[in-house]
Amino acid sequence: MPGSNKSLLARRARLLGPNVPIFYNDPVHLVKGEGVWLWDADGRKFLDCYNNVPHVGHCNPRVVEAIHRQASTLNTHTRYLHEGMLDYIERLTSTMHSGLTTAVMTCTGSEANDIALRMAEAVTGRRGIIATDATYHGNSALVSQLSRSNVPASGFGLEDYFRHVVAPDSYRHSDPEGLLFANAVAEKIAELQKSPHGFAALIVCPFFLNEGFPSQVAGWLKPAAAVVRKAGGMLICDEVQSGFGRIGSHFWAYEKQQIQPDIVVLGKPMANGHPVGAVVSSLDTMTVFRKSFRYFNTFGGNPVSCAAAMAVLEELEEYQLMAHAQKVGDYALERLRQLQKKYDCIGDIRSSGLVFGAELVLDKATKEPASEYTDTIINAMRHKGVLLSKLGRYKNTLKIRPPMPFSTENADLLFNTLDEVLAES
Amino acid sequence: MPGSNKSLLARRARLLGPNVPIFYNDPVHLVKGEGVWLWDADGRKFLDCYNNVPHVGHCNPRVVEAIHRQASTLNTHTRYLHEGMLDYIERLTSTMHSGLTTAVMTCTGSEANDIALRMAEAVTGRRGIIATDATYHGNSALVSQLSRSNVPASGFGLEDYFRHVVAPDSYRHSDPEGLLFANAVAEKIAELQKSPHGFAALIVCPFFLNEGFPSQVAGWLKPAAAVVRKAGGMLICDEVQSGFGRIGSHFWAYEKQQIQPDIVVLGKPMANGHPVGAVVSSLDTMTVFRKSFRYFNTFGGNPVSCAAAMAVLEELEEYQLMAHAQKVGDYALERLRQLQKKYDCIGDIRSSGLVFGAELVLDKATKEPASEYTDTIINAMRHKGVLLSKLGRYKNTLKIRPPMPFSTENADLLFNTLDEVLAES
Repeated sequence: MPGSNKSLLARRARLLGPNVPIFYNDPVHLVKGEGVWLWDADGRKFLDCYNNVPHVGHCNPRVVEAIHRQASTLNTHTRYLHEGMLDYIERLTSTMHSGLTTAVMTCTGSEANDIALRMAEAVTGRRGIIATDATYHGNSALVSQLSRSNVPASGFGLEDYFRHVVAPDSYRHSDPEGLLFANAVAEKIAELQKSPHGFAALIVCPFFLNEGFPSQVAGWLKPAAAVVRKAGGMLICDEVQSGFGRIGSHFWAYEKQQIQPDIVVLGKPMANGHPVGAVVSSLDTMTVFRKSFRYFNTFGGNPVSCAAAMAVLEELEEYQLMAHAQKVGDYALERLRQLQKKYDCIGDIRSSGLVFGAELVLDKATKEPASEYTDTIINAMRHKGVLLSKLGRYKNTLKIRPPMPFSTENADLLFNTLDEVLAES
Repeated sequence: MPGSNKSLLARRARLLGPNVPIFYNDPVHLVKGEGVWLWDADGRKFLDCYNNVPHVGHCNPRVVEAIHRQASTLNTHTRYLHEGMLDYIERLTSTMHSGLTTAVMTCTGSEANDIALRMAEAVTGRRGIIATDATYHGNSALVSQLSRSNVPASGFGLEDYFRHVVAPDSYRHSDPEGLLFANAVAEKIAELQKSPHGFAALIVCPFFLNEGFPSQVAGWLKPAAAVVRKAGGMLICDEVQSGFGRIGSHFWAYEKQQIQPDIVVLGKPMANGHPVGAVVSSLDTMTVFRKSFRYFNTFGGNPVSCAAAMAVLEELEEYQLMAHAQKVGDYALERLRQLQKKYDCIGDIRSSGLVFGAELVLDKATKEPASEYTDTIINAMRHKGVLLSKLGRYKNTLKIRPPMPFSTENADLLFNTLDEVLAES
């Protein structure tokens, strides 16, 4: 590790405290980004195969220009009239099913999920929430309770309201039509109905991205959605990672699941890194929430944030980036198939649009996760100039989720490098 | 109201739902801002005497340029190394007392307060929180419980942990040395100590801005702080509104109170409208929090946010805006004194730097609040091109809190207009 990095790590320890997440054994000191490329302080170029926040590319000129133009013109809160937020919500909701017509703009996906759970409480009058046991939905006191991989030691007793179902895993646990998952949800609903809390909502990423994006047939979530409806609960789809065309086949992952969520939560890629999130619901749901709680967010929906978010939608449309994600994702899957034939450690490969990865195992028969080896691979890739990460219950799945302009040529560089690293490691 | 505004209000109702806060009977449709000025869609110019978020002026060129430069260069999360956040935290904490050396960067003051309360829980192992009954600290499920003026109908049972003391009111309830307030805090501490929750923290805006910024001697909060310390609780100062030189005499309002908070919370003006907040504490407190909770915020501390926040500190220093706030605030107080002599409805005047206002009453003897009349005044001022608002328990205090470059000439326009409006209304 260069001395300058050691010095930056020492400053982090002093100014941020311990236990602050950082990537790689030898962290990367970034100074510049453009499209799918990042540069470190020594001028070394990296192919970014990880970052979904810069959805339409690092430092996308249209987004930068939109931010600059609006920041130079007016930036204020929404207690004055302004078209920016209205135009954006109109365009955003036009991409969703007909029930979803209203939104609250926030600054983060955490804030949006925090609202979504309160909407479910306000509408149902109940508080019991179900999520999977390998998910992540944000960092507020309320929302952080949804995570099991990172249970907070403190949390104002909120853990009582949450129940967790085993996350889907298409590689290890056969559930081809989602019936076992629906049964697990039904069990937790029954448990909550016997508690004082009752059942308010199921919240899921409809692509189960943190869970390791299991391979699922279209409509896999329909049985679980039916169970939720039958119990009078609400269905919250957290599209923070899976939305905005990322999965290639559909603009929203809930469409592929053939379900109609009551509430959709948005964040990360929404404004290409500018802090923007949102909660979308029907007017009825919004009305109940707005009458039970006079929510106001000082920065939420400000003209600059909305200009940045609008530029992302325009960029997606002009360059047809969803179709592009589908095409490049198909190509990546083919390259993954070739690697799987060559390397025994690749137990399973999964892909949809520009989210793809390989689950690494020590033994294809036992499927024992190669968690440490996955970490070795990721660090070796970083030293060869390719940035990616890992995820899933066993942290043994390569997490490849690049900015949407990622090309087949970029995929070639990624897989040629991965081939080298797997051969050497 | 012009037809275009009616149409925007109809779109708001359709796209945002009901009950979304908006200013004035005839809302202002803003299109442009510069310094202390705002323009509506018809080209009408308004003097902004309300907005503290554009702390160094609407569309401040240094801040806009910093955002543009960094957004064009690199914007990413903090799991890579970058100097931006470290340089900012170093400079920020150098303005605070020696114990406060570490920070978590967030996107909003709400997120920051949500962390502050969890820090208090993690450090003390207790959950009871005390606030005033006329305050506001944000909108997350946890933090919204601190407000009494706007109690959410739903909130996952979190209300149990909160106790409220009567807010200070220098006009109606004499408490010259803060002893009554300290006693009230002591009573609530005793109440919490008898409950299963115990006492974790007192959270206050050290300028009591939402409470109506009562006139207080320096050190007024010392007795309450002593009571908190004695009970082993933490003192959280929410400097979201009172900080960054706003009050003129000190950079932080806690300095004027001669207290040393354990945790300082920041937000709104921090990056002139770019969504940035922070929690500052000692390394010890941060270490306990970081070990009990692996907090990560995707947008928090990103290079663009830190560049914007740094530009605000630079602008404050270059133009000596704190000293400027003191000077203009003194002048404003003199103009307020003259108005008070002229109009019987002005029951009390209060000021510190660029926060000042007048409490309007129906009768100086009974001090009966003139809440409706205050609303009339504010709407009349808006029609004469001066934007301000009202606050306090009775919503009868004019809330004047302009961007920091606000000049004595601006103050003259404000008070000449107020003189006209008070004469006519």
